[in-house]
Amino acid sequence: MTTPDALPALLAALHDAVGPAGLVTDPDQVRSHLTDWRGAYSGEAAAVVRPASTDEVAAVVRLCRGAGVGVVPQGGNTGLCGGAVPDASGRQVVLSLTRMRRIRELDPANQTITVEAGVVLQSVQEAAAAADRLFPLSLGAEGSCTIGGNLATNAGGTAVLRYGTMRDLVLGLEVVLADGRTWHGLRGLRKDNTGYDLKHLFVGAEGTLGIITAAVLKLFPAVRSRATAWVALPGPAAAVELIEVVRALAGDRLTGFEVMSRQSVEFVLAHAAGARDPFAEAHPWYALVELSDTLPDAGLGEVVETALGEAFERDLALDAVIASGSAQVAALWALREGISEAQNREGPSLKHDVTVPVSRIPAFVEQTDRALAAAVPGIRVVAYGHVGDGNLHYNLSKPADSDDAAFRARADELARVVYDSTVSFAGSISAEHGVGVAKRDLLTDYEDPLELELMRGVKALLDPAGLMNPGKVLPAG
Amino acid sequence: MTTPDALPALLAALHDAVGPAGLVTDPDQVRSHLTDWRGAYSGEAAAVVRPASTDEVAAVVRLCRGAGVGVVPQGGNTGLCGGAVPDASGRQVVLSLTRMRRIRELDPANQTITVEAGVVLQSVQEAAAAADRLFPLSLGAEGSCTIGGNLATNAGGTAVLRYGTMRDLVLGLEVVLADGRTWHGLRGLRKDNTGYDLKHLFVGAEGTLGIITAAVLKLFPAVRSRATAWVALPGPAAAVELIEVVRALAGDRLTGFEVMSRQSVEFVLAHAAGARDPFAEAHPWYALVELSDTLPDAGLGEVVETALGEAFERDLALDAVIASGSAQVAALWALREGISEAQNREGPSLKHDVTVPVSRIPAFVEQTDRALAAAVPGIRVVAYGHVGDGNLHYNLSKPADSDDAAFRARADELARVVYDSTVSFAGSISAEHGVGVAKRDLLTDYEDPLELELMRGVKALLDPAGLMNPGKVLPAG
Repeated sequence: MTTPDALPALLAALHDAVGPAGLVTDPDQVRSHLTDWRGAYSGEAAAVVRPASTDEVAAVVRLCRGAGVGVVPQGGNTGLCGGAVPDASGRQVVLSLTRMRRIRELDPANQTITVEAGVVLQSVQEAAAAADRLFPLSLGAEGSCTIGGNLATNAGGTAVLRYGTMRDLVLGLEVVLADGRTWHGLRGLRKDNTGYDLKHLFVGAEGTLGIITAAVLKLFPAVRSRATAWVALPGPAAAVELIEVVRALAGDRLTGFEVMSRQSVEFVLAHAAGARDPFAEAHPWYALVELSDTLPDAGLGEVVETALGEAFERDLALDAVIASGSAQVAALWALREGISEAQNREGPSLKHDVTVPVSRIPAFVEQTDRALAAAVPGIRVVAYGHVGDGNLHYNLSKPADSDDAAFRARADELARVVYDSTVSFAGSISAEHGVGVAKRDLLTDYEDPLELELMRGVKALLDPAGLMNPGKVLPAG
Repeated sequence: MTTPDALPALLAALHDAVGPAGLVTDPDQVRSHLTDWRGAYSGEAAAVVRPASTDEVAAVVRLCRGAGVGVVPQGGNTGLCGGAVPDASGRQVVLSLTRMRRIRELDPANQTITVEAGVVLQSVQEAAAAADRLFPLSLGAEGSCTIGGNLATNAGGTAVLRYGTMRDLVLGLEVVLADGRTWHGLRGLRKDNTGYDLKHLFVGAEGTLGIITAAVLKLFPAVRSRATAWVALPGPAAAVELIEVVRALAGDRLTGFEVMSRQSVEFVLAHAAGARDPFAEAHPWYALVELSDTLPDAGLGEVVETALGEAFERDLALDAVIASGSAQVAALWALREGISEAQNREGPSLKHDVTVPVSRIPAFVEQTDRALAAAVPGIRVVAYGHVGDGNLHYNLSKPADSDDAAFRARADELARVVYDSTVSFAGSISAEHGVGVAKRDLLTDYEDPLELELMRGVKALLDPAGLMNPGKVLPAG
C-alpha cells in the first residue's frame, strides 16, 4: 500500500513516462474510463494513462509497482462483468491500451496477423478481408472492443462453433509482466513444444497476471458463399438433434447455430422497429442456422435443404425458411441480435451467461425454467444463444405488470437458481463474459476449492505484490 | 533425497497400494519400461508400477513423495526425446498408465469422448468411428502411443493443419498433482471463462507438473469422402504457394499437406519393398495433398483438379497424379510414411524436428541446406513434413561411402547448424516431439531466459519437491 503522499510523485512520473498525450485529463474522457459502457460498474482512479508503446506500458507498470499502486488495464471498455473498471478507492491507475493500435504485420502465407492490444476487433476483421483472409471472431461489440480485451476475457461470440474462442485463435503474445519486464512471446508458429505454454495463462486472466500488449492471431481462408435458414422448433431437444443432423452433413461448413425461445423473439417483435416474424404462427423455439464455404459456388442451399428435409421427417422442425438475398439474411440475424436490447426495453433484466455440455441443454432448460417459475410465477425467461457451444444466455424478465424494484431485489436469489442448475449439469457459470467483479465472489461457492487454490498460486507467482487489476477474478482467500 | 534404506519400505508400500497386478516384476517386462522403443534412451528404476485407477496413481505419488523418490510417468513409451525413460540412478519409480485404459464416456451430441490416460490413440479413433464421429489426431505410433502421452507431449501428426495439435483437442483433464491430490477438471465444455485455464499447464509438460490420468477430448463429424494427390514441385517455395492455392479454394477440406525432398523419396524407393515413383522423371520436391469432406459426394476431385490447374498455370506444379482408389492412396501415403524407416536403413541419421513460420520455409530450407553442405560436403538432407504447420523433419544422412562413426561424432555440431538456422527464422527447435532429455539442455541456449525463468516458477509452484519426472524438459538453473 502506498501512502497518500506518494500519489503526486507518481502522477508526475507517469506524465514523464507517457507524455502529455498519454495522460487523460479531460474530465469527460476521464469519466468514460471510470464507468463501463452499460453504466453498471463505476470507480475512481488516481490517473488514467494511455501509453503509446509497449515500452511505455512497461514504464507505467514499473512506476505503479514502485508506488504500490494497482494497475487496471482497459481496452474498448465493452466488458459485461466490470473487469476493466477501477475500484472506488481512487488509488488505482487505469491503463488504457487504446493508443496501441498498430497492425504490426500481416503474413498471408503463414495465415497470421500481428496486432497491438488496442486494435479494434473490426479493424482486424477488415485487415484480414483486405488480404483475402478471414479473422473469424465476431461479437456484438466488435466495432468498439479491442483485441487486448478479447484476449483478456477469452471472448467467444457467434463463430465459436467452427473457429473456437479467442484462446483458440492466438499463436503468440507480448506481455508486460507485473515486475515491468516484457515477455516477447510473439511467435507465429503452429507447433512449438519447447516447454510449458505460457500464453494460455494470460489469455482469459482479465489482466490480473500481466498486460497483453500485442498478439499473433490466426487467419483463415476467406468465405465466398453462405446460406442462412430460420427454423421453428418444438423445443431445445430438437435444437440439439438438429445441430447433429446439420453437422453430420455440413461438417465445418456449419459456422453458426443460434437458438432462441419464443419469448426472446416476442420481445424483439414488440420492441425492434421493422422486426417481423418469418412465420404466420408462433412456435416454441427457433434456430438460426448459418453455413459458409470457401468455394464461391458450394451448393450450400442444397445442403441446407437436405438437412431440413431430414429434420422435417424426424419432426425436429415445424417450419423453416432459407434466406434469399442479403436483406433477408440481415433481417433474420436482426431477430437474433436484437434480443438483448429488446429485453432491456421491456424493463429490468437479470442476465446469466452459462454453458453446459450440449447434450444436457434440453434437461437444463427444462429444470431451470421450472425452478424459476416456482420461485417467481409468471417470470419471463429469455433464453437464447450459441447452443452448438452449449452456451445459453439465460436472461430473466419480471412477470408482466409486476414491480420493477421487487424483481431487481431478487437478483441474487434468482442468479443462484440459474447457477445451481448450471453446476448440477456440470456446467460453467461464466461461459464467455468472464468473471471481473460481477462473478468473482460466486467462484467461492461454485468453483472447485483445489482449482481456486491453484489459481491463487499462479497469481502469487506472476503478481506477488497483487497490483495487476487488483480485486478482479479471484475471490478473497 | 531418500536414503538407500527407504527403498525397501517404499517397494512394500507400493505393492500394498497397487496390488501384485500393479507391480511389474518380470525382468523382460521391466526392461521394456526402462528403454524407449528406439533403444536410444535407457535407465534404471527402483520399481515399475502400473496402477489401475486414478486413486492408485494418487497413492503411488503420495508414497513416492513421502520417500523423496522421483516418479516417471510413461504411456506407450513411443516418445522420441527420452521423456518417459528413468535416469540411471535406479532410484526413480516408473509409473506406467497402461492399465488405465477405460473409455469412460462418449457423448455424441456434445461431440466429446472421455478416456483414461492409458487408452491407445487408435482405440480412441476406433471408438469415435463406431459412433460416426472422427477423432482426428493421427501419427505413426497411433497403434501403440497412449492419450496420456499424446497430451503430455502435445502430439501433432498429419492432421494438425485442420484440427490442431493435441492441445487443441482437449476440453478437460483429470490430473494427479505432485502432492498426491487429484484435480477433477474433466469438463466437457466448449466455453468456460471462470478464471485461469489450468489444463494448458499440464498439456505439453511431459509429466513434470503432474500426472494426467484422464481427459475429455473433442470429436468431429465423420469424414465421408477424400481426394488425394501427389504433386511434383520445383522446390519449397512452390509448396508454400501451392498450399495457398489449394486452401483458398478448399478451405477446411484441406486436411493434409505433406512435403518431401527428392532425397527423402529416393531413400524410400531404394529401401521400401514395392515402393514405386509415381512419375517417370525425378523432381526436386513433392507434395502429398489430401482433401476430405463430411459429404459423401462432395466433388473433391473437381476441387483438386481446379487447384492443380491453377498450379500448373503458375508453374508451381511440374507433374501431378490424383489417386484413384484406395490402393493408390495407400501407395502414396506409404511413400511419405516410409521416409523415417528408409533413412534408418541407409545408415546413421541425425533427426531434427523444427518449425518456422510457413512463409519462411523456402528461405529456411535454402539457408540450412547451404550451411550443412558447407559443413559436410556431400551430406544428404532428408527434409520432409507438415509444411502447412511450418513443421519440417530436417534429418541428415552421411555422404555416401563415408564413415558412420565420423558422421555420428558430428551430431551435436550439425544439430547446432539446424537449430541456429531455425532460430534465425523465428522458429522452434522442438515442433511436435517435445523436449524430454534430448533437447533439455539446448533450451539454455535457444529459449528466452525470461521464459525459462517463468517456466521454472511454474515448476516450483506445482512441484516444489521436484519429484515429477525429474530431469526432464527444464535445464538445470
